[in-house]
Amino acid sequence: MSGKFITLEGGEGAGKSTLARALAARLGRAGVDAVVTREPGGSPGADAIRALFVRGAADKFAPLTDALLIAAARSDHVARTIAPALAAGRWVICDRFTDSTRAYQGAGRGVDVRTLAALDALIDAPVPHLTLVLDLDPKSGVRRSQGAQAGEDRFEKMDLAFHERVRAAFLSIAADEPQRCAVIDAAKDKDAVLAAALAAIAARLGVQA
Amino acid sequence: MSGKFITLEGGEGAGKSTLARALAARLGRAGVDAVVTREPGGSPGADAIRALFVRGAADKFAPLTDALLIAAARSDHVARTIAPALAAGRWVICDRFTDSTRAYQGAGRGVDVRTLAALDALIDAPVPHLTLVLDLDPKSGVRRSQGAQAGEDRFEKMDLAFHERVRAAFLSIAADEPQRCAVIDAAKDKDAVLAAALAAIAARLGVQA
Repeated sequence: MSGKFITLEGGEGAGKSTLARALAARLGRAGVDAVVTREPGGSPGADAIRALFVRGAADKFAPLTDALLIAAARSDHVARTIAPALAAGRWVICDRFTDSTRAYQGAGRGVDVRTLAALDALIDAPVPHLTLVLDLDPKSGVRRSQGAQAGEDRFEKMDLAFHERVRAAFLSIAADEPQRCAVIDAAKDKDAVLAAALAAIAARLGVQA
Repeated sequence: MSGKFITLEGGEGAGKSTLARALAARLGRAGVDAVVTREPGGSPGADAIRALFVRGAADKFAPLTDALLIAAARSDHVARTIAPALAAGRWVICDRFTDSTRAYQGAGRGVDVRTLAALDALIDAPVPHLTLVLDLDPKSGVRRSQGAQAGEDRFEKMDLAFHERVRAAFLSIAADEPQRCAVIDAAKDKDAVLAAALAAIAARLGVQA
């Protein structure tokens, strides 16, 4: 039986990576073997592309170049990490995936959503069984996030209007695809966020953890 | 008036970069301002992607990942170097372009030619006014090329059958598009190669240099 694919989405400082680790620990205690991964990155080739992508000036690459770099990294990540884990029956918890591209490169930087969809089709990106959208006011998020990962601040440097567009895009995706997405209030403390995520997993995927 | 776009194509060690410099010098003396550039690379963003691409193990990235990385680099190169130069009326001489992707990632590594065409359409890659295909037996070419650029040997490491497929692909592209392409015997000395290239420029583009 193939595993479940859960993606965590949201702006800077929303607590996605903390939640990913906490979910894997709880699922593990419930007997579910879950791999935690992230984008950009998640395989040696994709991590090398990440290093190029997340550092430097905000306009280092044109918006379409960013979208193609993310697609390149995702093709490696899917082929070498996500697809093999799912095929082996493991669950995959991925910190950022296609919705981040739609929010950051699409709504944030103006790349046509059809271009992004064409790239995801080209690389055969799997559709998540569940996407948890961690919603947070960008003013709190960028403040929480600063310095979290030394030097990886290319997108944090974007202005507040950019981060507002990103937040609106995540909420719009969640509203358009309520079967796949659950929105969680990321302003709450991390135990409350974890409880909300576990409730969504129980309701949508039928696993109590 | 917009400038002319000339691409130089062919396998390892065929003498493309030497010819590019010689052509620009001769065109300059004939009053044509020509920019010399190359792929992967040709703009600061694309050069950063090149550094990732041309070093390391032959299977460092999956074939589709390679194609997407090249498309990312090309999108930056076209937007920031090639298109502005042509719009300013300068000629552009580019060492490798879309035909190299068709030969190396397509024929060499098995990426579907329709995928490569879709990526070039996405990034609005200009069609060259003239493509000079420098044809050379891969056994001589790889030998000539070794050590030419320290560490940039990821594709030189591919086996001879790979380089034979690449050569056949270049010849097939030239046969399919005789209006755009001229094949030059790169086994000849560099003065004879330059003379053949200048003859093609005179015949196809109407400029004596």
